[in-house]
Amino acid sequence: MTQLTFWYDFASSYSYLSALRIESLCGESGIKHVWRPFLLGAIFQSQGWNTSPFNIYEAKGAYMIRDIARVAQNRELPPFRLPSEFPQKSLLAARIGTLGANSEWIADYTKSVLARQFVDGLEVEEPETHVHLLNALGQPGKAIVSRAATDTDNKLKLRRNTELAQEMGLFGAPSFVTDDAEVFWGDDRLEGAIDWALKHA
Amino acid sequence: MTQLTFWYDFASSYSYLSALRIESLCGESGIKHVWRPFLLGAIFQSQGWNTSPFNIYEAKGAYMIRDIARVAQNRELPPFRLPSEFPQKSLLAARIGTLGANSEWIADYTKSVLARQFVDGLEVEEPETHVHLLNALGQPGKAIVSRAATDTDNKLKLRRNTELAQEMGLFGAPSFVTDDAEVFWGDDRLEGAIDWALKHA
Repeated sequence: MTQLTFWYDFASSYSYLSALRIESLCGESGIKHVWRPFLLGAIFQSQGWNTSPFNIYEAKGAYMIRDIARVAQNRELPPFRLPSEFPQKSLLAARIGTLGANSEWIADYTKSVLARQFVDGLEVEEPETHVHLLNALGQPGKAIVSRAATDTDNKLKLRRNTELAQEMGLFGAPSFVTDDAEVFWGDDRLEGAIDWALKHA
Repeated sequence: MTQLTFWYDFASSYSYLSALRIESLCGESGIKHVWRPFLLGAIFQSQGWNTSPFNIYEAKGAYMIRDIARVAQNRELPPFRLPSEFPQKSLLAARIGTLGANSEWIADYTKSVLARQFVDGLEVEEPETHVHLLNALGQPGKAIVSRAATDTDNKLKLRRNTELAQEMGLFGAPSFVTDDAEVFWGDDRLEGAIDWALKHA
């Protein structure tokens, strides 16, 4: 079965838009999708940025907020917000997401972390926050958070995934990568990525 | 009649994609469109960039080429190329385009300048090039190029348009601005800009 890998960062506003629709869009097309968290901040740093380009380039940041607000309205989502500090540090969430990447809870966990920031405007940096989010999904939050934060293999896996993202030329999130290594960047390229995957299956 | 202003730079690869379809898309929707060249390079400079971000950020540049190649294929356009030097200096073309912004030849002139770069891979910096392109459209090329390069009011108008673009928060091209000052950035937002213009006419 052809598959699409969804590369995302847990602090990424446009990843929020894609996380909400990748299941239904891929499902309708009969394509498998894989959740693949990575650390976009590490890639930004290698470009000489110490924060999101949305912060460095003011006009771009203002536009992003307006653009997503319009998309959210068109898709009948709740009003879009930014957390009081943007971007949030996404390391812990990324470690949890890497640990659970193939679990039954990865989709709901990812969406809850993103909605907490971009609907509720709240932080996602505190371990306790993730314990609560996971518990609310019926998962053993404390055990998962503790393991994600300490498991050396898991930490290395996330680091390796981030290096792989950079080797593949990823420079933003969300990015979608097909089986034949075609890269599509941005929520507005999700349909194009699915079309490609179908045509080149 | 509601109208959409098409802000573009004559050296912009994504502006090429929009120039080819803005007439038909706006026409089908019963919306007037206005051609509005500006100098994106001046805005880049104010952000501290001395060239296109596609050159500064290698992964982004490589992606842009692949992304447009795919879009061109989907739209059944000729294979996409970059001119040997990218971006081309677009000052002269922008002055000509500003002079002719409301003329009958602006659409065809714009498309010919963009196709020369992004289909033929050729330069558009030489005055003689523009004389030929305009002559090929049945226009007095030499007179137009000469006037565009010397007319002080025209030069000021282009400068003022570029300042206006920056004041409106434009940071890339193409951008589409509605009558009620909504800004849409990128070829993939053209449909959204038209929808907005129709809903808020």
